[in-house]
Amino acid sequence: MIKLSTSEPGFDRQFQALVDARREADTDVARDVRTIVASVRDEGDAAVHAFTRKFDRHDLNDTGWRIEKAEWLAAHDALAPDLRAALELAAERITAYHVKQKPEDSDTTDAAGARLGARWRGVDAAGIYVPGGRAAYPSSVLMNAIPAKVAGVERLVMVTPTPDGEVNPLVLAAAHLAGVDEIWRIGGAQAVAALAYGTGRIAPVDVVCGPGNAWVAEAKRQLYGVVGIDMVAGPSEIVVVADGRNDPQWIAADLLSQAEHDPSSQSILFTDDAALARAVADAVDLQIGELATAKVARASWDANGAIVVTADLAEAMPLVNRLAPEHLELACDDADTLFDMVKHAGSVFLGRHTPEAVGDYVAGPNHVLPTGRRARFSSGLSVLDFMKRTSFLSLDEKALHAIGPAAVTLADAEGLPAHARSVALRLGQG
Amino acid sequence: MIKLSTSEPGFDRQFQALVDARREADTDVARDVRTIVASVRDEGDAAVHAFTRKFDRHDLNDTGWRIEKAEWLAAHDALAPDLRAALELAAERITAYHVKQKPEDSDTTDAAGARLGARWRGVDAAGIYVPGGRAAYPSSVLMNAIPAKVAGVERLVMVTPTPDGEVNPLVLAAAHLAGVDEIWRIGGAQAVAALAYGTGRIAPVDVVCGPGNAWVAEAKRQLYGVVGIDMVAGPSEIVVVADGRNDPQWIAADLLSQAEHDPSSQSILFTDDAALARAVADAVDLQIGELATAKVARASWDANGAIVVTADLAEAMPLVNRLAPEHLELACDDADTLFDMVKHAGSVFLGRHTPEAVGDYVAGPNHVLPTGRRARFSSGLSVLDFMKRTSFLSLDEKALHAIGPAAVTLADAEGLPAHARSVALRLGQG
Repeated sequence: MIKLSTSEPGFDRQFQALVDARREADTDVARDVRTIVASVRDEGDAAVHAFTRKFDRHDLNDTGWRIEKAEWLAAHDALAPDLRAALELAAERITAYHVKQKPEDSDTTDAAGARLGARWRGVDAAGIYVPGGRAAYPSSVLMNAIPAKVAGVERLVMVTPTPDGEVNPLVLAAAHLAGVDEIWRIGGAQAVAALAYGTGRIAPVDVVCGPGNAWVAEAKRQLYGVVGIDMVAGPSEIVVVADGRNDPQWIAADLLSQAEHDPSSQSILFTDDAALARAVADAVDLQIGELATAKVARASWDANGAIVVTADLAEAMPLVNRLAPEHLELACDDADTLFDMVKHAGSVFLGRHTPEAVGDYVAGPNHVLPTGRRARFSSGLSVLDFMKRTSFLSLDEKALHAIGPAAVTLADAEGLPAHARSVALRLGQG
Repeated sequence: MIKLSTSEPGFDRQFQALVDARREADTDVARDVRTIVASVRDEGDAAVHAFTRKFDRHDLNDTGWRIEKAEWLAAHDALAPDLRAALELAAERITAYHVKQKPEDSDTTDAAGARLGARWRGVDAAGIYVPGGRAAYPSSVLMNAIPAKVAGVERLVMVTPTPDGEVNPLVLAAAHLAGVDEIWRIGGAQAVAALAYGTGRIAPVDVVCGPGNAWVAEAKRQLYGVVGIDMVAGPSEIVVVADGRNDPQWIAADLLSQAEHDPSSQSILFTDDAALARAVADAVDLQIGELATAKVARASWDANGAIVVTADLAEAMPLVNRLAPEHLELACDDADTLFDMVKHAGSVFLGRHTPEAVGDYVAGPNHVLPTGRRARFSSGLSVLDFMKRTSFLSLDEKALHAIGPAAVTLADAEGLPAHARSVALRLGQG
């Protein structure tokens, strides 16, 4: 963890280093992924089978390529009642939030007599990547699958690696609850490529979303254009802006809730109170020791944590905008005033009683959010990621005579005579 | 041009070949672009200078890196009155259509007392690529710049190559009209990389859009994630669905209006009338000879053109959906009935008096549209491409008590104790 203060000399340089320290896929990963993607494209199931044996250490022909619906149902039925209720509350609230994102079609006729509009439709098929191992989260299944279902996607395909053949029952239960249609026991770049190109067994999809490690993220980046993707996802981040009237234990827990995700996660506190800064640093050190995730959290906090002391909270906001964080907590009175100063953030949590973790699970907004400063130009996962818009135009003779001549003039100016002729013929000038 | 009929044996195989014949960036282009992008990232202006001298054959230190505003203004003032009026009509109609795309913010409080919402903001800076040479189109400047301005982008940067130093005055005039802020005399993959990473002279942008050759398209693909991009664009396409009661000259002109763009463009006619199919084929052959763009149009039509005869127009529609065309004309009575059968298309032109070329210039909807079957999952350029959404959440103690316990249950189930603690502490369970 580094401690900075805007009042100290050298702050600008140190803070810029923090801004620049966002991590891109390295060249080795990109090269490996290119090889895997090309193999799956050219060899299909055989390549998927071989990579799964190599990376996940099981033979798909023995374990089965698909996980059957009976198994999801059994996992769902075996849930403890409080856990099932929690998942159901989450699914219900996530659905309610995302239903409001559905765009409206338009169909209007303007003064020139031109009928113009736009029509939205869901994609035919979407694929959801669900990590195995440490990051196998049922909440991720809900956050990725529900927007797709709300969008009207007909075929929803989940892929999830089962290292050494082991399945995570919580993930299966969540898939059942969210309305997934197929689950394949594959992961890594090979699973993303299989979804994008299709194989003998697996029909291709139109959109691939969901979190994954560096290989999965890089495969999505490379296959963008072959399929739609949600976003290139990097390590998780939280920025907390807190005044002096916060319980340092609460703020410490918030910072650690990102740090425990991954050693490359990042947690940053901005405060205008040097005493709170010290108290939070102490509380973090104390709380870390009590966590089952201590090793990861400590690695993350040591390498990427930061506490920045500012003259006042307003001074923090331009710095926050430079970071364009995935998650931003504004733990102070009148959080709305600070929120008005936020230009770039994936999701914002207002006030002292809104810990970011509530948003990870049950609040309703999506927890799939832009990382690595990408909130400058991109948004959290939404229903729109699973839909596409078709514009349309209809002219009668009168409307064509009103606007067609200008099209002929522009086509001529651009040196495109067939464009001009296709309009001119209909204007009787052919 | 190939002629197919759904009633002939072998149709399925031949049509599938047509569907599969979409062209991806080849490996050589990808490799060259990686080298250029890395050079610009690492060496900045020096690399941009060297690549411009190599590919555009002029020295930026002699010709100037920027094109100054006085020059745009002069180009605008020198426009012929009818051309200026046509550009102004286009700008006005494009603006009117895109203003309607601006999304609304939301801010509501639900039954649990949770305040939830989403806030949209424009990106800070956007870059627009405008090709030089054959494809230097003022209409492209309007179609890319206007949505960005409507989105509220503060800094709008245009890059355009000037091969041998030569500037296209129409493009400058359109930039002036559309409200562009800076124009740089650079192009190719080096210009896209300069926009994405920034150089000493050029400040980085958040989104890069605009058409370009294979190098430009591949550079955008590779830099996706570093910046937002509009879409990976391929060669232009048109599909026309026409019944027998069409003037074959009109339909031939429509097919040629795409064919004249580029030798790799594609024009396909579906009709249920074999006589119309023959008449259109003859009309295309006749009209091509009269075009100033004959060489390009003939190469495109010979290599990629197709006429498909179907039993009726309804039979054509599932085939059209497999192609997911960029442009689709429905030249028949009751075009709305066929439009209801369209699942995948970038933009649709309804009825006999709606030639696609009107949409290229003055109708209002954007002419930057998904190609290469990408209408399955992506949409034409819109105001949304220059905006991003920040979700937000605010809980008071009561609301946290209502939904927080479920978050604790889920965090525990996922093995994330710091997540659970950040909520539990605020519930008095710490």
